[in-house]
Amino acid sequence: MSEPGTNSSCGRLYGLGLGPGDPDLITVKAARLIEKMPVIAYFAKRGASGKARAILEPWLKAHTREVPLLYPLTTEIHFCDPAYAQALRAFYETSAETLATYLAAGQDVALVCEGDPLFYGSFMHLHIRLRERFPVTIVPGISGMAGAWCAAQMPMTWGDDVLSVLPGTLKGDVLTTKLRESDAVVIIKIGANLAKIRASIIEAGRLDEALYIEQATMTGEYFQPLTEKKDENAPYFSMILIPGQGRRP
Amino acid sequence: MSEPGTNSSCGRLYGLGLGPGDPDLITVKAARLIEKMPVIAYFAKRGASGKARAILEPWLKAHTREVPLLYPLTTEIHFCDPAYAQALRAFYETSAETLATYLAAGQDVALVCEGDPLFYGSFMHLHIRLRERFPVTIVPGISGMAGAWCAAQMPMTWGDDVLSVLPGTLKGDVLTTKLRESDAVVIIKIGANLAKIRASIIEAGRLDEALYIEQATMTGEYFQPLTEKKDENAPYFSMILIPGQGRRP
Repeated sequence: MSEPGTNSSCGRLYGLGLGPGDPDLITVKAARLIEKMPVIAYFAKRGASGKARAILEPWLKAHTREVPLLYPLTTEIHFCDPAYAQALRAFYETSAETLATYLAAGQDVALVCEGDPLFYGSFMHLHIRLRERFPVTIVPGISGMAGAWCAAQMPMTWGDDVLSVLPGTLKGDVLTTKLRESDAVVIIKIGANLAKIRASIIEAGRLDEALYIEQATMTGEYFQPLTEKKDENAPYFSMILIPGQGRRP
Repeated sequence: MSEPGTNSSCGRLYGLGLGPGDPDLITVKAARLIEKMPVIAYFAKRGASGKARAILEPWLKAHTREVPLLYPLTTEIHFCDPAYAQALRAFYETSAETLATYLAAGQDVALVCEGDPLFYGSFMHLHIRLRERFPVTIVPGISGMAGAWCAAQMPMTWGDDVLSVLPGTLKGDVLTTKLRESDAVVIIKIGANLAKIRASIIEAGRLDEALYIEQATMTGEYFQPLTEKKDENAPYFSMILIPGQGRRP
């Protein structure tokens, strides 16, 4: 593996996971790479610097070139609309070419992202566009769900427990079935889906086990039993955890 | 939260995740805590220092008191045998009291473990025995599965993919059903279960997607398509990954 910044032909693309939010939850490996990386790119919404940039803040050096990649849209178009996929595809293609310019010029580039790069990570959309053209190194990050269950001190999986990770964007009946069939469950992508998710959890008979959590490991960290959460307001990145009950001698 | 080593009444129990194997994949937070921790405990098999101890090695200070907790048995008794649960229960109880002695004397104690402390982690067995008596802090670690998919550069979950984590100890028909119903799948606890797992993957029609991986992020890291693995020899901590195929604009 080439060292960042020393490759004489073309640069290496790094996918660096930044973990769930607390900057001290990045890995030692990621911290060292960030320190010597000539170019660091991250996704953000227009008008905001983004969560990845916030985690990065204490680790960034003055010499680093920052490349923000600004999403062209957020919630104005529904993700089922073909225009959504089309706009996003064009954005990912442009972003990949932006990174390719640095890489082709021989500079190493890190694309950093919250959580883990290959677990629902935005990194993957540029990775599939660049991996045939440039060498790649991927450094895992603590997932948001691990940050959440450790913050809540909730043991998740024991013995032969099956863990399912369910996007809250799934249909209610699908959620209900999966909730019935799994031991431990993490529901992600909550946001406007909370009322539907809650109904599925109740139908599956698992309401009493469910913990609602937002901003895990960050300022504003907050969790409570779902039975005690009376409103349906939830950020998209909040989560619901249902622990497994497997073998425990 | 009290600082390690400075609590005047009783000590704090730390559950520290050490990640998948590469010592540089521990978090900055865990590295800092290890540095100033007066007592560090870890599980190991009799006659071996263990994987947790190996990851810890470059981070340990000369002043640290090490407390190895040695499992009383490994594979001589099957885990369905009541004698297994009984022996293990006695071991966890003795181990918890060993840590309690330090904690009651005012010393902070870190129990370190591979991967994440609350995800199939041995830490959980002492945590449930001590959490009512002592203050606890839990620091997440990179799971073995995240270490594996990043090492293999395999994007795992896209868009609305459901991820299931399946212990290979489950019965074949259960594995087959779960393999059919999930998008992305991680199969853990392989060992002597590989032939059964392979049969379930074939029956679920997912053989061509499956990647076998062992020793991820460590010396001896090795992966290959399951179709190309001709024998049924696998360490217990090897894994099989089947990636999701969700939305990717």
